[in-house]
Amino acid sequence: MQQLKRLTIGAVLSIFSAQLLAAPALITNEQKQTATQLMQTALKSDLGMEIVTSLTTEIGPRLGGSEAEKRARDWGLKLGESLGFDKTQVEEFTMPFWDRGHLHISLTSPYQQELYGTALGGAAPTKKSINADVEYFRDIHALAEIKDNSLKGKIVFIDGDMMVKSQTGAGYGQANQRRRIGWQHAQRGGASALVVRSVGSDSHRFPHSGMMSKDGEKWAEIPVIAISNPDADHLRRLHNLGKPLSISLHSESKWKGEVSSGNVILDLIGSEKPDEIVLIGGHLDSWDLGTGAVDDGAGIAITTAAAALIAKLPKRPKRTIRVVMFGAEEVGLLGAFAYAKQHEANLNNHVLATESDFGAQTIWQLESNLNPQATLLIDEIAKILSPLGIVRGGADVPGGGPDIIPMAAKGVPTIRLNQNGRDYFDLHHTPDDTLDKIDPDELAQNIAAYAASIYLIADSDVELKP
Amino acid sequence: MQQLKRLTIGAVLSIFSAQLLAAPALITNEQKQTATQLMQTALKSDLGMEIVTSLTTEIGPRLGGSEAEKRARDWGLKLGESLGFDKTQVEEFTMPFWDRGHLHISLTSPYQQELYGTALGGAAPTKKSINADVEYFRDIHALAEIKDNSLKGKIVFIDGDMMVKSQTGAGYGQANQRRRIGWQHAQRGGASALVVRSVGSDSHRFPHSGMMSKDGEKWAEIPVIAISNPDADHLRRLHNLGKPLSISLHSESKWKGEVSSGNVILDLIGSEKPDEIVLIGGHLDSWDLGTGAVDDGAGIAITTAAAALIAKLPKRPKRTIRVVMFGAEEVGLLGAFAYAKQHEANLNNHVLATESDFGAQTIWQLESNLNPQATLLIDEIAKILSPLGIVRGGADVPGGGPDIIPMAAKGVPTIRLNQNGRDYFDLHHTPDDTLDKIDPDELAQNIAAYAASIYLIADSDVELKP
Ligand SMILES: [Zn+2]
Ligand SMILES: [Zn+2]
Repeated sequence: MQQLKRLTIGAVLSIFSAQLLAAPALITNEQKQTATQLMQTALKSDLGMEIVTSLTTEIGPRLGGSEAEKRARDWGLKLGESLGFDKTQVEEFTMPFWDRGHLHISLTSPYQQELYGTALGGAAPTKKSINADVEYFRDIHALAEIKDNSLKGKIVFIDGDMMVKSQTGAGYGQANQRRRIGWQHAQRGGASALVVRSVGSDSHRFPHSGMMSKDGEKWAEIPVIAISNPDADHLRRLHNLGKPLSISLHSESKWKGEVSSGNVILDLIGSEKPDEIVLIGGHLDSWDLGTGAVDDGAGIAITTAAAALIAKLPKRPKRTIRVVMFGAEEVGLLGAFAYAKQHEANLNNHVLATESDFGAQTIWQLESNLNPQATLLIDEIAKILSPLGIVRGGADVPGGGPDIIPMAAKGVPTIRLNQNGRDYFDLHHTPDDTLDKIDPDELAQNIAAYAASIYLIADSDVELKP
Repeated sequence: MQQLKRLTIGAVLSIFSAQLLAAPALITNEQKQTATQLMQTALKSDLGMEIVTSLTTEIGPRLGGSEAEKRARDWGLKLGESLGFDKTQVEEFTMPFWDRGHLHISLTSPYQQELYGTALGGAAPTKKSINADVEYFRDIHALAEIKDNSLKGKIVFIDGDMMVKSQTGAGYGQANQRRRIGWQHAQRGGASALVVRSVGSDSHRFPHSGMMSKDGEKWAEIPVIAISNPDADHLRRLHNLGKPLSISLHSESKWKGEVSSGNVILDLIGSEKPDEIVLIGGHLDSWDLGTGAVDDGAGIAITTAAAALIAKLPKRPKRTIRVVMFGAEEVGLLGAFAYAKQHEANLNNHVLATESDFGAQTIWQLESNLNPQATLLIDEIAKILSPLGIVRGGADVPGGGPDIIPMAAKGVPTIRLNQNGRDYFDLHHTPDDTLDKIDPDELAQNIAAYAASIYLIADSDVELKP
């Protein structure tokens, strides 16, 4: 990756000289020069790695609503102050707290073998240990067809397939149905518990955690456990051999009442249009199995470091740049909904929003969902990002990232700098999401892209409102 | 890997035609033709995958001395009968049984975080839960320098470095000192427990198990736990930040008295010199965290499948080919020592021995430790294996594999077909040693090499005795 760093720094320099004379009116030569300098600085800077190292090492795992997440907010405030943000604050909210507790799961027939599993978010505990025969379903469609109360006393296992690796994460939403709503069919069938193949693209012995979906206002009343892909393969082979399967299960996961969480907000106040907010961010919480390096320590590091580099410019950009470290994302976008509600009155001043929450591999594409003139601005920005290996994507793609959903639903314009997600679902929500998985040079490329594009957007005279 | 298969089958055919006229006297044209056919058959056969799939799926993990290892012996006998071996038997022995039991280990200062660890073989249990300050040692050399009783009430952590990946596994023996004898220094210092960085080349959140060494006749009187490389990195970073570390530990691992184990022995009786034994094999036991696919289901599959292919030839080779599925290798080469003792009287009839116990990646080298004439034979065999990508290695390299050590020490000649070990220590003794890690085409290459070379050795008139 040293090579990538050298190449991109060189390319950044040459494209700048070549385009100097042909600069379009939407971006001034001075702005372009500043953006180019930001990219060069970002590619050589260690700030992003320092931030994600500090967060994962000094705070560790930080489940939404936990004491660790509170420590992370304090850390975020201190970080913002040290990096020269003009205003730093926490906006608190309350939320129900789900605790993973202790789990033990093993195969008991045809023989005793430990399984590598974890409770899914929202799952109920076992009252005492369960030991039950397994009813095997090849996929969630097969389970959806069962009759009510036809699975009494059984542990349901929903198999499925390992996710195919892809740049875009295609296939996650579909595969994730077994994690999201599998419990509704199993519970309707009267099953004692549900076990599902993890949703992930790795063949390692790690379960992938993640939140289930409510059924209306109701959470699952049964334990729901994800097991690793190799464990699911094992059960499938035994099932195909006609072996009767049974599983022993003890899980203490449960809801534990209302707690506090919060969003950390760091502002660089705009020099000309301080009320117009360009919002970037990531989520501060993580699942509790790993240390949340890739999901989403990386997003926190990328957006905070990008804004911090902009903060070092001689002059603030015209618009306000706001970094939001969202709380409690993993457990249902709770910080995002709280933010959208708490800022309901001034959401129309949020002229653009985007989140980094897809790991730290190289950004390859810039998408947007903006008015026609602002779309032309993004076209020009994409050209400036091109030396980083970034191409222009769709100009009417709703998105911006998970925590942006609630405000985008209320009309806030969005862009998205899409990371290569090829390895993302190897690590997603597993114990293996740790600092060593982040490549410093890829992280620096992300920061370069964010710094340049967010600076150009915030400093632009182009109207961004819809 | 389809490509490797096609390439090697093609190369096997062409080298055979090219060398037909120049055949040296040590190997007849007919033998060479048979060896070549064995290689072609092996490259196209699924037998090896079928064996390792059956072992890992139908038996699962099989700790030395366990009920599962007994089921594996029954499986081995039945397999031998079904594959046409002339004689199948189990030779039993007794052994002390160490049970891993339940473990919980977490960081408690500077904050609460689960650690991914496992007890090392031979470790004592915690009497009750321990929660103690951590004394950090950068490596075992630093720990070796401590004064007696200077670590009272502490949990010692021995850091170290991640193993560098290598073809030969170089560095394992040295790195393994902290696993093997680290406890002797920690116990001498009066520590309550020892935690060590796992000996492995992966950066995944898996601990690597493995046996400790006795101090004379004494096993450790303290709990000894290996933690994953990312966990060790985490502790190192916190230590370097000057944070006081403490760890909570509860471990139930302990010795549980004498049990039975055994070696499974499958013979193809020689047609001319039935008393001269060419011994190949692997070990049937595995560590209990994974399903022992790579270590050493692969070795069982490779050697059994190779002999089974030879068994299908119209005529038995001149010498007896014996496949030994050794028991209780991981816990101290117990099956190997039992074999050497039980066969003490006729070890001089064991004219050659070799074991496959280094995974299932491609074999790249053929080493030997034989008399001068037999060495020339091996030189010729290496030429025949060359289309498989195998080169001739040293001609006076003591070895043959772990289970061969006791008989080699008593003078049994050895060869070794060396696998590429690059990924071996990623998986070694972890929960992640599962079937999906074996590449069917690489496994087939192994079987081709074993089948051809063992056939040529067994059918040769060259004297193999020292
Ligand atoms: Zn995320
Ligand atoms: Zn082994």
